[in-house]
Amino acid sequence: MAFTDSLRDDADEIWTAIYDHPMVEGIGDGTLDEERFRYWLRQDYVYLVDYCRLFALGAAQAPTLDRMETFATLLSETLHTEMELHREYAADFGITETDLEETAASPTTRGYTDFLVRTAALGTFGDLVAALLPCMWGFNDTGLRLREDGLPDEERYAEWVRTYSSDEFTELTEWCKELMDDVAASSTPEDRERYRELFLTSARYEYEFWDAAWQLEGWSV
Amino acid sequence: MAFTDSLRDDADEIWTAIYDHPMVEGIGDGTLDEERFRYWLRQDYVYLVDYCRLFALGAAQAPTLDRMETFATLLSETLHTEMELHREYAADFGITETDLEETAASPTTRGYTDFLVRTAALGTFGDLVAALLPCMWGFNDTGLRLREDGLPDEERYAEWVRTYSSDEFTELTEWCKELMDDVAASSTPEDRERYRELFLTSARYEYEFWDAAWQLEGWSV
Amino acid sequence: MAFTDSLRDDADEIWTAIYDHPMVEGIGDGTLDEERFRYWLRQDYVYLVDYCRLFALGAAQAPTLDRMETFATLLSETLHTEMELHREYAADFGITETDLEETAASPTTRGYTDFLVRTAALGTFGDLVAALLPCMWGFNDTGLRLREDGLPDEERYAEWVRTYSSDEFTELTEWCKELMDDVAASSTPEDRERYRELFLTSARYEYEFWDAAWQLEGWSV
Amino acid sequence: MAFTDSLRDDADEIWTAIYDHPMVEGIGDGTLDEERFRYWLRQDYVYLVDYCRLFALGAAQAPTLDRMETFATLLSETLHTEMELHREYAADFGITETDLEETAASPTTRGYTDFLVRTAALGTFGDLVAALLPCMWGFNDTGLRLREDGLPDEERYAEWVRTYSSDEFTELTEWCKELMDDVAASSTPEDRERYRELFLTSARYEYEFWDAAWQLEGWSV
Repeated sequence: MAFTDSLRDDADEIWTAIYDHPMVEGIGDGTLDEERFRYWLRQDYVYLVDYCRLFALGAAQAPTLDRMETFATLLSETLHTEMELHREYAADFGITETDLEETAASPTTRGYTDFLVRTAALGTFGDLVAALLPCMWGFNDTGLRLREDGLPDEERYAEWVRTYSSDEFTELTEWCKELMDDVAASSTPEDRERYRELFLTSARYEYEFWDAAWQLEGWSV
Repeated sequence: MAFTDSLRDDADEIWTAIYDHPMVEGIGDGTLDEERFRYWLRQDYVYLVDYCRLFALGAAQAPTLDRMETFATLLSETLHTEMELHREYAADFGITETDLEETAASPTTRGYTDFLVRTAALGTFGDLVAALLPCMWGFNDTGLRLREDGLPDEERYAEWVRTYSSDEFTELTEWCKELMDDVAASSTPEDRERYRELFLTSARYEYEFWDAAWQLEGWSV
Repeated sequence: MAFTDSLRDDADEIWTAIYDHPMVEGIGDGTLDEERFRYWLRQDYVYLVDYCRLFALGAAQAPTLDRMETFATLLSETLHTEMELHREYAADFGITETDLEETAASPTTRGYTDFLVRTAALGTFGDLVAALLPCMWGFNDTGLRLREDGLPDEERYAEWVRTYSSDEFTELTEWCKELMDDVAASSTPEDRERYRELFLTSARYEYEFWDAAWQLEGWSV
Repeated sequence: MAFTDSLRDDADEIWTAIYDHPMVEGIGDGTLDEERFRYWLRQDYVYLVDYCRLFALGAAQAPTLDRMETFATLLSETLHTEMELHREYAADFGITETDLEETAASPTTRGYTDFLVRTAALGTFGDLVAALLPCMWGFNDTGLRLREDGLPDEERYAEWVRTYSSDEFTELTEWCKELMDDVAASSTPEDRERYRELFLTSARYEYEFWDAAWQLEGWSV
């Protein structure tokens, strides 16, 4: 069994909780309250900035030139293409670029991104790969699953489903899974146990990230 | 006005929320439910391990030998003395060393420590100082304030108040405030603005840390 | 006076030593012994891999999205375009891609790249900018000065001069100088003094890097 | 065969070159020119400051509390005890504390310490252990070997031999070797290959460090 298959098994309860979350269901059937989605969009933009730092740290630590090239590509494409798409998409919801840039991280966004950056800064290259995987994998899985049920009538939510279930996004996810399996294959059992913990922590944060949008979460003080 | 005085002003609402928190009030009058305090004790131990990493990163980045020596001392004393006291104190609540070591970080502990380590790893020496200050300052302030009202009858909570209001802990806090003022004095306004944000984020986490114990907070999935 | 002008003044002796170095003179008049140039080419390739790590760390630490984008572009272009050109150019000297990848760092290459990566990893964003500047600036200056004297007959050395005196490379250098001036403008005098030391250390390594090729430098043991 | 035994075999040529170096022979028979020894003393002090950063980064990255405690102890003892001894010993050679603090790193000191800090900052915990080992091991081995031949008449050089051949320093070295063997035992063959390369690079720098003192090495420009 591939290492990522065993990760998927261990995360099954979390994955299911994501599928069943009212945010995801609301995108799927097109009924999601726009305020919550706008909250999600703004926080996701804040998240992406630090996700890019993760790719940059991956390039800095890459053990081979090949892997450095891939992380440089991930960084460049996310920063130049994906974030531009995000800005355009946000505009459809009346969110300006200034709004995005002025958004303060919610507790969950702060917690998730600090976890990622800390892991990348103090951990090994394999740790970094394990921590970044659930974001791509979770969105791709969610997109593919929603697509199976048919696209929602609300065009903007349909667009969300198309994006994350696209061939391009699926290939990117597959590439990251292969990288994880590749790294895991030349790791010790202790390393793999650590990867598993890091993967599950990110997966939990994926759920919390949806839930923070549903709750319109803010700081207590 | 000293830079730390202006930080104290900005954090006033957070500080007040901490004084008024039922955890703090319960320690002060000795009525706090033990389960919640045990939760706090275990999470605080998890927190201290990463707080030590912060001191270690401070020593690694210290711009002068003097400051390296101080951070080395903070690291050594926390690791060898304070954590031992913590273990002994925890034993009074029926918590073994194994219990402490097996405690998993709650979401708030995870969020706070990852914020600290990330700040220390990617930020400047001044950023690190700003982020670590609220923990010491907050506990010292809380200890001193509770002591003014008289020690609780419950001996173990009285011990808590004595520890954090002790001359030794007060001096340590003063030293950290002086370090912050010293660093701030040779910083740019932009640097100081960043220090302020980092300080306030840690201060918020101080409140959330108490509240997580009150809520017996766990992960949703 | 711009901060970079004052840096240029301080580095004047080092700059002159570079202009007068037999490696540089030999490229300029086309008489340089190929063995020494091949040594330089191979070491420069080793150098570029770590120079890319520097750009990656710059992107990871960038204080604004704009600067993150620029460092991501520098990383991506160096890794995908410049290193490919380097491989093609090396082939003209009978050096294969495998040769390049199997080249072990000479003491000077090791010293220079470790200095850069260490500075980027433990220092501030401004430190990183100061340390990376002499490489681009030195090559551009050297290229422009050699071009003034006319291109050498030896086509491959003429190509070297054209590359580093090109408009594209000159613009890149100007951009890095502007970034340094921009960072210096919002820094303290202590910061600028540190930038100056870092800049001069890299400038010294630029000279040593040429000299290591001239000496065909290796490890003593 | 213990992993460290295989490292010792691989470094045999370097070790022998160190034993045979005129600096080491001169300490052993008490005839070493004082100017060269003073150069060594001053550079060694510069070296120790960054060696302490290595211990601090080791504490920051330590995978267990036990190892964090050991690195904190190494840091604290080196910073508070060993450097004080170094200052006292240097005074016997007419070198003041100010002289030590104002000493600029020679190219070899710069190269070696940047290598160590870079390895600690970007590498794994095992990488850090491999890179720090040759310094302790080399000095202990050299001290023990010189002692076998009898102490030199020159009391200050005899003191040098006594220090590095002492039971205390020997135990410290043994502890570091055990740590390396322990880390290597739960590592992959690729990890161990990387440890070997890092160990050999530090061992080479140990030789170069002696040689830089013999040459009274300075920067070319």
